Amino acid sequence: MTVLVAEPQLHGEKDPLPSLQARLACRAGMASTTAGIANGFVQGNLAILPEKLAASFHRFCQLNPKPCPIIGMSDVGDPRIPSLGIDLDIRTDVPRYRVWRDGEVADEPTDIMAHWRDDLVAFVLGCSFSFEEALMADDLPIRHIERKVRVPMYRTNIACHPSGPFAGPMVVSMRPFKPADAIRAVQITSRFPSVHGAPVHLGHPHSIGIKDIAKPDYGDPVPVEADEIPVFWACGVTPQAVIAAAKLPFAITHAPGLMLVTDLRNKQLAVL
Amino acid sequence: MTVLVAEPQLHGEKDPLPSLQARLACRAGMASTTAGIANGFVQGNLAILPEKLAASFHRFCQLNPKPCPIIGMSDVGDPRIPSLGIDLDIRTDVPRYRVWRDGEVADEPTDIMAHWRDDLVAFVLGCSFSFEEALMADDLPIRHIERKVRVPMYRTNIACHPSGPFAGPMVVSMRPFKPADAIRAVQITSRFPSVHGAPVHLGHPHSIGIKDIAKPDYGDPVPVEADEIPVFWACGVTPQAVIAAAKLPFAITHAPGLMLVTDLRNKQLAVL
Repeated sequence: MTVLVAEPQLHGEKDPLPSLQARLACRAGMASTTAGIANGFVQGNLAILPEKLAASFHRFCQLNPKPCPIIGMSDVGDPRIPSLGIDLDIRTDVPRYRVWRDGEVADEPTDIMAHWRDDLVAFVLGCSFSFEEALMADDLPIRHIERKVRVPMYRTNIACHPSGPFAGPMVVSMRPFKPADAIRAVQITSRFPSVHGAPVHLGHPHSIGIKDIAKPDYGDPVPVEADEIPVFWACGVTPQAVIAAAKLPFAITHAPGLMLVTDLRNKQLAVL
Repeated sequence: MTVLVAEPQLHGEKDPLPSLQARLACRAGMASTTAGIANGFVQGNLAILPEKLAASFHRFCQLNPKPCPIIGMSDVGDPRIPSLGIDLDIRTDVPRYRVWRDGEVADEPTDIMAHWRDDLVAFVLGCSFSFEEALMADDLPIRHIERKVRVPMYRTNIACHPSGPFAGPMVVSMRPFKPADAIRAVQITSRFPSVHGAPVHLGHPHSIGIKDIAKPDYGDPVPVEADEIPVFWACGVTPQAVIAAAKLPFAITHAPGLMLVTDLRNKQLAVL
């Protein structure tokens, strides 16, 4: 687990951090995408599991750090994750949740006060928003952002290393780039291993089991031009797909695109 | 110019460094490829020009650091380059030279004692042997080495930044890799900017003006399998092609593949 500590969450009483503002908005009922919210701050994927499955899931993340990079986790039954925000309450601070029962989405509430239990453990996993910020800071164009759609995501034939009931294929996100930009994107994202890091594949979609690049399994399609290369990163949807496939009696995740906004800074995640 | 200093050239009187042994062999008449010689030591491309053109060429290298990374240069008229080897004599220590007159190879001697002049300046440029060693150390397969042929090289439509009479297209070398290995190769070679650094292109040969990947302009063809990506690096043949195109009255280079072996260690060139 990446050991990082959030900076103090307040500049001053009248000037809360944008990340805290986002969480306060969530507590007040905001239930829209966090894309573009609190720029500069790390957003995370969420997985909440009963203690008896948490060890297996933790090991699954350990074995599959590219799709499942842990940036924070709670103590058993404790809804706080102070390393990601001193005030943070995982039961209220995500815009919308998914409550899973037997592998199906049973509910999509805006808080999980009614679902919280003393045996639950929350895992927060890195998210591609962080590395997209670094790519854009280097003037690399990101197709799905330009087009204001969701990133296209695909189930692959790359098997995750299984752990207990957690098993299944890696899900990847795809961003098309001209070749020189693809090389630069490899360099930039390599600096951010805790938010998926370097790509896992480029070119040749068939090699990783993607039959039709125009038909993503999640998100929206974007065109790949004739002089571009599709570049594939391990995706934070992987744990959600694995949780669904495991048909667990009970689990909670965030709703896709509606992430936990933390007080960590994206720039803190750079290893170089 | 990368400022590096070679380690002392002798372990002890009876145990000269492999690099010095290679230079001593050259002085004694060895005239074969230096590929695989003195592993671990930096080899360099050579360009020797009259002082009146040296400033323009130096600026050309400054403007085009990926194909022309300078790792050492001599003082005017001085055949020594102590930073690359205290004993080094640029007139004798390369296996075979090319003497250029009006853009044509006029002679290919094994020393240039008869051609040396008080107005000459020698430039030593980084070479892909250094990064290939790093790739192989990471167990990445290098096709042309496996097949014991020369690396395939291509003239591209990427224009070098001109300086005085020095102008022309970048020449690139190509190594095919499976996608995950191509990503790793970008990471590894990014650590070695003084020996061409990260690739300049991958996939889509046509985008950089390569009409037929099976017909390199220099070196030997190697197959690119259906599940592989051709990865292109700026190549040290570029300055030689530019010197030829400039039809200079007089210049000296090494013969391709027969390089200057220095006392620098490849590992010294890693920036990270």
